[in-house]
Amino acid sequence: MDTEKDNLDKLVTDIAKRAREASLSLATIDTAAKNQALHALADILEEHANALIVENKKDLAAAEALELAKPMIERLTFTPERISKMAEGVRQVAALEDPVGEVLESKTRPNGLVIDKIRVPIGVVGIIYESRPNVTVDCAVLCLKSGNAAILRGGKEAFHTNTALAGYITQALELSGLPTDAVQIIPTTDRWALNELLKLDQYIHCIIPRGGESLIRFVAENSRIPVIKHYTGVCSVYVDKDADAELAESVVINAKTQRVSVCNTIENLFVHKDAATTLLPKLAKALADKNVELRVDSTAGDILGDFDTEPASEDDFYEEYLDYIIAIKVVDSVRDAMNAINKYGSGHSDSIITTNEVTARQFFAGVDSATVYWNASTRFTDGFEFGLGAEIGISTDRLHARGPMGLNELCSYKYVITGDGQVK
Amino acid sequence: MDTEKDNLDKLVTDIAKRAREASLSLATIDTAAKNQALHALADILEEHANALIVENKKDLAAAEALELAKPMIERLTFTPERISKMAEGVRQVAALEDPVGEVLESKTRPNGLVIDKIRVPIGVVGIIYESRPNVTVDCAVLCLKSGNAAILRGGKEAFHTNTALAGYITQALELSGLPTDAVQIIPTTDRWALNELLKLDQYIHCIIPRGGESLIRFVAENSRIPVIKHYTGVCSVYVDKDADAELAESVVINAKTQRVSVCNTIENLFVHKDAATTLLPKLAKALADKNVELRVDSTAGDILGDFDTEPASEDDFYEEYLDYIIAIKVVDSVRDAMNAINKYGSGHSDSIITTNEVTARQFFAGVDSATVYWNASTRFTDGFEFGLGAEIGISTDRLHARGPMGLNELCSYKYVITGDGQVK
Repeated sequence: MDTEKDNLDKLVTDIAKRAREASLSLATIDTAAKNQALHALADILEEHANALIVENKKDLAAAEALELAKPMIERLTFTPERISKMAEGVRQVAALEDPVGEVLESKTRPNGLVIDKIRVPIGVVGIIYESRPNVTVDCAVLCLKSGNAAILRGGKEAFHTNTALAGYITQALELSGLPTDAVQIIPTTDRWALNELLKLDQYIHCIIPRGGESLIRFVAENSRIPVIKHYTGVCSVYVDKDADAELAESVVINAKTQRVSVCNTIENLFVHKDAATTLLPKLAKALADKNVELRVDSTAGDILGDFDTEPASEDDFYEEYLDYIIAIKVVDSVRDAMNAINKYGSGHSDSIITTNEVTARQFFAGVDSATVYWNASTRFTDGFEFGLGAEIGISTDRLHARGPMGLNELCSYKYVITGDGQVK
Repeated sequence: MDTEKDNLDKLVTDIAKRAREASLSLATIDTAAKNQALHALADILEEHANALIVENKKDLAAAEALELAKPMIERLTFTPERISKMAEGVRQVAALEDPVGEVLESKTRPNGLVIDKIRVPIGVVGIIYESRPNVTVDCAVLCLKSGNAAILRGGKEAFHTNTALAGYITQALELSGLPTDAVQIIPTTDRWALNELLKLDQYIHCIIPRGGESLIRFVAENSRIPVIKHYTGVCSVYVDKDADAELAESVVINAKTQRVSVCNTIENLFVHKDAATTLLPKLAKALADKNVELRVDSTAGDILGDFDTEPASEDDFYEEYLDYIIAIKVVDSVRDAMNAINKYGSGHSDSIITTNEVTARQFFAGVDSATVYWNASTRFTDGFEFGLGAEIGISTDRLHARGPMGLNELCSYKYVITGDGQVK
């Protein structure tokens, strides 16, 4: 047993050390070489689509034997179309601007020192994720383009597919003369190995966990390495007393029902008391027509007497349903709405519907979330919609990155300072 | 025992909850109100200088009874002059620009959404520090100016002084109508309480430890809250084959001897082999004249045959001496120098001395440190020297902040997005 643990420790430590070595050369590699590797990878993935599908079928067979849920098996499945799309995604990242080397600030001090703040890669980034094997390729290419060495630890459900993908990534790195340790996969899904990995803060600089809340909590609680994450997306729309009725209905329906299983979908609806009697029945009807279950506070319940509703408990407003369910509360003021959002929400994405700019500005300032909307659906919280060209994840943390994270958010900076002999 | 622990848990949890509440209103308080509180504090500190000195004397008496080291007692001591200087420092922070609310980026998407990225406070910041009681005031005012609620946990040596200072800060907050929970001090130096505090990631968003390496390691290893830190400053100068001899000597002497006890002082000197025979004896003589002990690798030892030197072990190059000691190694190339710096250094501040721009650019790109200098002393790594107007600390981490941290680095950002009914 202890020998086994020692071996796992050695395994992950070796991987981390080699990643750190690779990161030092990656940081100085030019854009053309990085793009060449990305194009090589896209070509290799398309050429080996059949072999990839063979490996993927092993994971699918295991998943069926384990009677995994249908949506999970669906997410796990590779088809020729999905592989082409994945290759296309790799080429799109190649086409993005290289974030590394940009001068973020430059100033000359009174003593003549020229201080330049330059964007540089973070160094070594660990990605811990579940099921969907395309994450392996997405994360590898985003890290590579931003000059970071990547350590990838996928879920056991996709183990064969991930291993095959890692082999193709290594081929592409080799072909392009890049260090093959630039992207490494942890060749075990043992939890002990993960736990050890999370302690290696001398080699790894950032951990990004992607997946269910329990995985993310495990990572956050056991990591000595800084983690960028969001646990859940408990998002809300607040319909103000000055809301446009049609706009409110269209945004609420879109934010709740366009895709219920994602983090930027709303779970709560707050309605100003002065708008509740006129607007709430319309909103409730539109939601009910989309088969959304209504969990309502007592005021909303009174107003919606004829509707099929459930009484909402306090806990309901904290819940990330990811389902056709919404919790509804009538509030006395925009202040009450903001307090409710700051209390129940997860700081992800919240929207106000109002024609009153003063109220909207108050909401912008007072809602303590990564993204705050005025008269728009929360569903736009996404790296592509934000024009970042890519997304490695979404953060509800406040340090380093908040909201959708693209290539810039995979970077740090350093100061380079030019003098002519200055001493203190 | 357990009741005592429960009480400490409750104590720190209450403080953290109240700080979180205060942070929500602080985030929307205008600059004038924050500056009013800072000026009030400066006045109060000056008015109560005598009372402060009385409290400080209690700490000094305890320190003498415990036979603490002289430099420690010196750092602990308040004088009327030091109190005036502290008050002046508070007024200087009031004069700095408010970082909150600045629009960092603004773009309009093809669908008409206007996405603004706005600088906002982090939220709740915990500062864990040792001995010097002026840190209490420095950190409180920097957090306040940047709209953050502060939780301060000082060392037991300064307990009475810190408690008195906290009382004056509360007075200033009250006088100015700001929430008094905006700055709170942990009224115990019990380690259990600190440990509990570091778990409260639902209320506290960032921890900045300041002090000795063992305190910082304790915080980093036990915190579930993101920590921004530097453990040590193992800084180096590399004297290239194309170095100007006079400039090299002046920078090396300044970087090593101007103040030996600080983190941006150098501990290692690397000299290119082609410059070693001519330059190394001059540098060694200048260092020896300043009473710096020379720990040398075998090549340097051969060149410095007549000098009083000690052989350097491998471990010597990892050491943060904070003393009149330097480790010296002769290297074959700038590549070797960069490898040595990336291996032994702590990623803090490193400098190259050369007249060759190509070599300097290579050094800038290849040295993986927060600040990299060309022909200047490492002693300039400091928030004031960088023109930040203030410094809450220096980071050798790569996420959020790297290098000296001022008011901007005490901020996060959020996206505020204006639409006219956009749905996905």
